[in-house]
Amino acid sequence: MTERIGFIGLGSMGFPIARNLLKAGYELHVYNRDPRKAETLVADGVRQGLHPAEVTEAGGIVMTMVSDDTALEQVTLGPDGLLEHLGPGGVHISMSTVSPALARHLADLHAEKDCSYVAAPVFGRPEAAEAQKLWICVSGAGAAKERAQPLLQAIGQGIYDFGEDPGNANIVKLCGNFMIASAMEAMAEALTLAEKNGIDRCSMMSMFGQTSFSCPIYQNYGKMIAERRFTPGFQMRLGLKDLNLVLDAAEDAKMPMPFASLVHDRLLSGIAKGKGTADWPAFTLLVSEDAGL
Amino acid sequence: MTERIGFIGLGSMGFPIARNLLKAGYELHVYNRDPRKAETLVADGVRQGLHPAEVTEAGGIVMTMVSDDTALEQVTLGPDGLLEHLGPGGVHISMSTVSPALARHLADLHAEKDCSYVAAPVFGRPEAAEAQKLWICVSGAGAAKERAQPLLQAIGQGIYDFGEDPGNANIVKLCGNFMIASAMEAMAEALTLAEKNGIDRCSMMSMFGQTSFSCPIYQNYGKMIAERRFTPGFQMRLGLKDLNLVLDAAEDAKMPMPFASLVHDRLLSGIAKGKGTADWPAFTLLVSEDAGL
Repeated sequence: MTERIGFIGLGSMGFPIARNLLKAGYELHVYNRDPRKAETLVADGVRQGLHPAEVTEAGGIVMTMVSDDTALEQVTLGPDGLLEHLGPGGVHISMSTVSPALARHLADLHAEKDCSYVAAPVFGRPEAAEAQKLWICVSGAGAAKERAQPLLQAIGQGIYDFGEDPGNANIVKLCGNFMIASAMEAMAEALTLAEKNGIDRCSMMSMFGQTSFSCPIYQNYGKMIAERRFTPGFQMRLGLKDLNLVLDAAEDAKMPMPFASLVHDRLLSGIAKGKGTADWPAFTLLVSEDAGL
Repeated sequence: MTERIGFIGLGSMGFPIARNLLKAGYELHVYNRDPRKAETLVADGVRQGLHPAEVTEAGGIVMTMVSDDTALEQVTLGPDGLLEHLGPGGVHISMSTVSPALARHLADLHAEKDCSYVAAPVFGRPEAAEAQKLWICVSGAGAAKERAQPLLQAIGQGIYDFGEDPGNANIVKLCGNFMIASAMEAMAEALTLAEKNGIDRCSMMSMFGQTSFSCPIYQNYGKMIAERRFTPGFQMRLGLKDLNLVLDAAEDAKMPMPFASLVHDRLLSGIAKGKGTADWPAFTLLVSEDAGL
């Protein structure tokens, strides 16, 4: 438990994850582009590095949780990036939601340096991260996944293994976010039809949340959408990023995804209308708007 | 408990519902267009009528569970229909999935005869009906709903009241079936993307059913779709009927429902390709087909 872990990315997801690792007894060496985000951790005695390379120990473990492909490439391959310093035997646990193509490419580059890339994207909003209730999908080389296991156990409530292909965990993550976005659009269309007929949105959503759709996505997002109250947590522009990754993956795989295309356009339109920093289910306001509400 | 109830419609849903009413101690007088479907009930001592009017007692309760608007109009308003014989104080509990417009129209006609129409569409497949595990949405006049209550309790696990407007319970039912169909399309697109990347469909669906989507719709239909095994229960042509009702209601309410339009077209195409009598999630085979699988 006293192994020192490099931790890169202290955003709304990375920060609570880092804190849970500290609670579990790990020693962290953190890096964040904006160093101020590390202040409270530093006050607790955590060491902060000036760049990704500085927090990366040769042969050690480094975890990244950054916002997109570009940021992950930057901290991994950029000047003072982590890969140069990870070296033989090192393991990079990559939790960001990125393209499967980038995951596969980075895994190859890690292999060239005799270190390993483990894809470990997570499901759950910041509250879930804080409560150690993330669900984690992993894929990558077996030995590296095994080394990642105790760290992932310290931050989540369940780990699902999708094999050796480092892109696969990201595919599953994208499938999940796509299904969540589709559920939002479906709920919004249903709620709008109900509202137009004088039915209370919250009563109907509450019934579905207790019956056929008694699961977190419909219960939590359903309440937000029914009440039109969008607790900040995951911005619409990040939702758009994910739907773009879904459509890119669909293009690579040669398959139409009509629901994904439609939700993608909703997010695009939501951003065009100035809602880009609102929480992502806010795109469902456009369903009401299209109905003249 | 010894009140004699008229029961019309002994299809895959009506039959198990009628049996649960018998078990609860009600005396039934049944009618079905094809009289052979009543044979096992008759063998148990249930009386069978030759037409809807014959099973309808003046001032009594009659329950209907038929396949569509036309069938409900037929048994209610047709020659020897139930409405002529229900008379003052009578209650018609209508469990079929029909258009809200028809429900409202029939409620008016019942009111003219001093009897009541209670909309009580149900959620659940034939297995759920058999296990007394239906979820029931009701709307209609208060006193009539109260009289219907013990009967509905005998066949379901939960009753949700959507007010006085007799069309509202049907709107909620249509919203539910639309959300179910949307979930199927979303699962199919996600599973196809996974499959194209070499990920096992069943493993991925099982993960979602245990985590963010841990509810009956995703667990049960998800398994069918992942395995491409479509247990007969609710035929695709009935799914198309429901999506047509959804789009009609959307047209009446003046609102676009792009997901509903898309799923409607899938069902139409599924039927065009000869799958009309398959269970309705079988339309998701078209998602695979579009992807060249």
